[in-house]
Order: sequence, then structure tokens, then C-alpha cells
Amino acid sequence: MNNFTFKCPTKVVFGKNSVEQLPTLLPKDAKILLFYGGGSIKRNGVYDAVIKELKGHKFVEFSGIEPNPKYETCMQAVKLIKDENVDFILSVGGGSALDAAKFIAAAAVLEAGDPWEEIIIKAKPITKTLPVGDVITLPATGSEMNGISVISHKEKGLKFAWSSELAYPVFSIIDPTYTFSLPQRQTTNGIVDTFAHIMEQYCTYDVDTPVQDGFCLSVIKTIVKEGPKVLANPQDYNARANIFWAATCGLNGWCGVGVIQDWASHGIGHELSAIYGLDHGQSLAVVLPAVLEYCVKEKAQKLALLGREVFALEGDELDVAKRTVDKIKEFFLSIEAQIKLSDFGVDKNDAAKQISERFKERGTVLGERANIDAKATKEILLSC
Amino acid sequence: MNNFTFKCPTKVVFGKNSVEQLPTLLPKDAKILLFYGGGSIKRNGVYDAVIKELKGHKFVEFSGIEPNPKYETCMQAVKLIKDENVDFILSVGGGSALDAAKFIAAAAVLEAGDPWEEIIIKAKPITKTLPVGDVITLPATGSEMNGISVISHKEKGLKFAWSSELAYPVFSIIDPTYTFSLPQRQTTNGIVDTFAHIMEQYCTYDVDTPVQDGFCLSVIKTIVKEGPKVLANPQDYNARANIFWAATCGLNGWCGVGVIQDWASHGIGHELSAIYGLDHGQSLAVVLPAVLEYCVKEKAQKLALLGREVFALEGDELDVAKRTVDKIKEFFLSIEAQIKLSDFGVDKNDAAKQISERFKERGTVLGERANIDAKATKEILLSC
Repeated sequence: MNNFTFKCPTKVVFGKNSVEQLPTLLPKDAKILLFYGGGSIKRNGVYDAVIKELKGHKFVEFSGIEPNPKYETCMQAVKLIKDENVDFILSVGGGSALDAAKFIAAAAVLEAGDPWEEIIIKAKPITKTLPVGDVITLPATGSEMNGISVISHKEKGLKFAWSSELAYPVFSIIDPTYTFSLPQRQTTNGIVDTFAHIMEQYCTYDVDTPVQDGFCLSVIKTIVKEGPKVLANPQDYNARANIFWAATCGLNGWCGVGVIQDWASHGIGHELSAIYGLDHGQSLAVVLPAVLEYCVKEKAQKLALLGREVFALEGDELDVAKRTVDKIKEFFLSIEAQIKLSDFGVDKNDAAKQISERFKERGTVLGERANIDAKATKEILLSC
Repeated sequence: MNNFTFKCPTKVVFGKNSVEQLPTLLPKDAKILLFYGGGSIKRNGVYDAVIKELKGHKFVEFSGIEPNPKYETCMQAVKLIKDENVDFILSVGGGSALDAAKFIAAAAVLEAGDPWEEIIIKAKPITKTLPVGDVITLPATGSEMNGISVISHKEKGLKFAWSSELAYPVFSIIDPTYTFSLPQRQTTNGIVDTFAHIMEQYCTYDVDTPVQDGFCLSVIKTIVKEGPKVLANPQDYNARANIFWAATCGLNGWCGVGVIQDWASHGIGHELSAIYGLDHGQSLAVVLPAVLEYCVKEKAQKLALLGREVFALEGDELDVAKRTVDKIKEFFLSIEAQIKLSDFGVDKNDAAKQISERFKERGTVLGERANIDAKATKEILLSC
């Protein structure tokens, strides 16, 4: 096991009617920014439930933060925070709203410089943020229990992740009933995202970490079993709860401490979102299998273990590893994900050229063995 | 899955030479109480390593806290804290020292009343504590990442657990190399304790929690595989690291959120420690298999899953469940645990009589179905 440091101070309140605990979680005299995206939180009832619990609190609203949240929109919220002397941000919605909330919490109290440059590009350690709490309604990013945030810059056509020890939510409320009304596309995206998070942490080379490997396989087994259930019956509470908890555990650090991590699929996927506007989950459904295929020999041990434990495959290691990638593609197709660039009208030659040129220019090298360079990225995208 | 609330704010620093990070973790101007047990921390080098990192800090020492830490000894430390105006407690050693540190951290700032009565017997919610950090050197209790503390009252012959959201360590440093020199008895006790912690959380009835069940089985698989390795080669770093991380994960809440829990074995085991002085791990090696045997029908589903996944057993559920209990006994014996009361010179008739009388008097009822009453406890102990 590698040395590691771990801390996740977020309080999680999980289950039916957990929004009712909001009054005990919010600081008494805070001026709150109620921060959300489009109208879905008004359709699924969570907006009304939150408003009811905000009785007695001073609050202002900011709506309209988009999927793949934009820097430009975030800066409008920062202005509102300053104008209204907000001192607590309550994000209601999915990981995009929460990622944006984390960014504006840091940007609003940044002492000098441009927030995009200072927080994301220079990635300077942040020294303070406003506190953020959330009611998370989409099982996908794991943002509800980590200090990670992904922000896009519309004008520059860029999408990057940043993170900070200070960016963890103070609390996260998870009521799986609010996922009953998710469109199939978002349910599917969330399952693919969770699958990919685990693979980025698990599917590298072994440094003797059986506890963590078992945790990873438990999350994978759960989503492979429960994923089809939520698609078949969107109101299956138990399945929705298991999918949500799997998503949260998929990126709260529990599965990834002390192991070798990858993150090449996310690195390439973010470019597909930035250039062609693919949903995050859509980009991963395309890129992850291609990366696994490209690296199948060096990832054979972990792939084979997964294939044996999750898909009951038998045979020699490399053979099982290859068939495991096929099984992952089959699983993605079974939950109605699309796994080819052409499914999204994207020309693979154009993607391969543009993204490999970006990586060349930036000197980007990805993967746990630092061997996914511009050339490898081109090959991977040409196979998508 | 049941509704749950989870928060564990402890920062974990894990790995070789992690004690070197102590200066970055300790508050700059704090007066520190260096709190430890007997001489083992001087023999294994951790005392010297800690003293080196305390350079520049004001500190006083309190040594002599015993295994099954006593209230009476704790109160001596409380006096020292008050006399010396200590404002940070650094526990160095095993779970007993840390449990005691948590208790004195609460007792030292208790505003009124007797700490045993207020904190443990009346279990009033604590409103403040001194901060506690630790260098934990024994993989067993999981105390390094939870808010639980177990204290014994020598005069009254009692042993009870208490817990608080405020009792979590601020940080826990885990360097598995300090476990190389553990006596076999302590290594064995720690493995049994971890096994029992998981069983108390896992082996009840199913409320559809596949993520958590998989986490539990991962910890069990790890200790079944790595336990014999550390006994055969005490200086096997990887095995020691895996055993330690399994112990920490065994009781940090990750395996137990949203599930039905038991804790009957611990409830009975604490009495054996209080009356006959058995080590905590020793008491569990005796009681856990007996409780599982007594409840084999109602625990059959989870026992059988464990038997299939960990011990590769096959057959119908109840049959596999019964053979799983046998396998657990075999495993305990294989790591040199003793599983009969007579191994410790304790008369089972005496234990059954004394403990069932205590439970009758207190109205104690244990187990996930609240069916382990005084009578059941008597039967269980007569089978030990």
C-alpha cells in the first residue's frame, strides 16, 4: 500500500425525508444563497421541500447554473454573493450545481487576481472559502463527499478539475426519492460516471491493497446489479438508494486511498465535453472502454480480477482481461449508454486531431504509467 | 437501506515515517499532554520518534494508562490536565490509550457532576472536549477513526462504551512499521477484534445494502488472507499495512452505515473483561462464535454469503451458515486465538450465572432482534 493522507469532513444525511433535517444543519443567522440549475428541482418537488425548511432564514436565489458549469455563469453568482453579503451557499441539484457552488465559494472570497487563473490554472492552495452545503439529487459525480470541482470556460473552450481540502461540503443531504424522476439519459450518465470513477482508481497496477480493491469491486458489483433495476423501474427505492450510495462511495476517497490511480479517461473525456458538448457520462462511455483496450496488457491483472468477480469469467489472465472490456461495453449498452463517437455525430478523426494537438501543445501525459501522450490519445480516439 | 447520518472528520496520515508529519498536524501554540501506556512505545521506537517531532512544543507526559483503561487512572490524567493547563492531548499507543484520551478530553472540560456518571452512565450529549490527536500503534479497535471510547470502572467492576460526535480524533497517524514488534497475543487480539467489529455490523438481517456488505466482506477477506502472514512474518510491511487498514475500516462507519447492527458479542464480551480481566480480543474470540451458533438460523443469509465468498463453501443456506461458524472458529485457532472460557481458567457456569444476573438486574437485551436477554446470555455462555 502506498502512503496516503485522507480527510473527508462532510456530514452525510441519507434517506427518505432527509431534507427535513436542513434546519439543524444550516448555521442559524447565515444569509444563504440558494443555488440551483434549471427547472428540474421545481418539477421533482425538492425545491418546494427546501423552501419549506428555509422558513426563518434569510436567503437569496441564483438559478440557471448549467450542466458542465461555466466559469462565466459562476462569476454572475459571485457578484450576487458580494452584493447580498451571502455567507452560506446551499446547492440544490446535481454535481454540476455543487461543483459550481464550490468554485463560487472560493472565488467570492479570493483576495486578488482572476478566479479562473488563480484557482484553476495556477491551482494555488486556497486559504479560505464560504461554507457550502447541498441537497444532491443526481448520483454521479460524488461531489457531495469530496473536495473536487470541474468547471468549464466557455470563451476559452476549456474544462478542468480543481480540488481543495477546503472545498468539501459541510453537509450533503441525499434523498434517493428525488432521483425517481430523473430522465433515463441522466440515470445512465450517472451509472457510467460511477463505473468510470472506480476504474480510474482500481484498474491500474497492483500495490497490494486488498481492502481497497474489495471496496471498488463492491461498488462495481452494486451498479452492475442495480443499474438495470433503476432503468426498468425508476421508482424502486432500494435500487435508487444503492445506486446513489455507490456513486457517493465511488469518489469520496474510500476506494482510492493508498492505490495507484489513472484518470486518463477523464482527461480525454473532459476534452470531448469542452469541444463537442458531450455530457460527462457520455464522454466516459465512449473513452473508458477505448482506454482499457489500449492498455489491456498493462491493466490485465486488475481487469481479470474484475472479470472473474463481477462477470464470472474464467480463463487465463490476459484473455479474461480482454473479455472483461467486452463485458463493460455490453453493460454500458445494456443501460442504454452510447459508446461510439459517431453516436453523437462526432467525427473521430477530427476529435483525434484536435485533442492530440491540445495535449501536444500542453505537454499533457496521462495514465498511471504516464504513457498516454498525444500520440496514444490520437490512437485511442481513432478507436472510439 | 436504512436512513443514516455519517460524519468522520478525522484526518488520517498513513504509511512509513508518517510520524514525521506531526509538526504540521499539531496546533502551533498548544500545551500538549503526551499520553501513553506502558513501556512498549519506548521499546518499539515510536516514543523517540514522537519526542523528536515535538521539538519546540510545550508538553507534559502522562504514562501508565492500562489495557481496558480504568476510570480511576483517567481521573489522575484529568487532574494533570487541569494543573498544567493542557489544551491538546496526543495519545501514543493502542486503542486503550486513545479511548482513555477521548474520555479525559471530555472529563477535563465537564462543567458539573461526576464524569463517570455524566459521560458514561447518563450518556448526556457532550458539548465540548479538548482536541485529541494520536499515533496509533495497534490495529484493533478502530478508535483512530471513530468517536467511540470504552472505559472500565475498577471499583465498580464495570466496563462500558460511550460515544460522541466530539470524540473523533482530530488526526490519526498510522505507521504500520510500529506493529512489527507487537507480541503475538496482541496481533491475534487485534485480528479477532476487527473480525468481530465487521460481524457486529454485517451479520444481522438484510436490508438491501450491497455496497456495505461488499465492504464488510472485503475487510474479512483481507484479514483472513493477511492475518496468517503477519503471524508467520511479523515484519511483512504490506501484510501489516493491510491488517492495520482493515482494522481502521472495520469500525470507522464505512461498513456500517444504513445497515442493521448487532453488538451482542461485544456486550457479553465486555462483561468477561470486567469480571475476569480477559483482553477485549480474547473475550470476543470466545463469545462471537457462540453468539453466531445461537443465532445461526436468523443470521443464516449473511453467514452463508460470507461462507461462500470468503471460505468458498457450497450448499444450501442453513448448512453453509453452520459450516461458516466452524470456519470462523478454525480461523481463530489458526491465528492462535483461544476460543473456550476454560482456556482462560474461567468456569463457564460461574460466568453464565454472574453475567446473566447482571443483565437481568439491568434489563439488558442485546442483538439486532433484541432477543439476547439474560436467559439467552446464560445459554450462550454455557456453550463457551
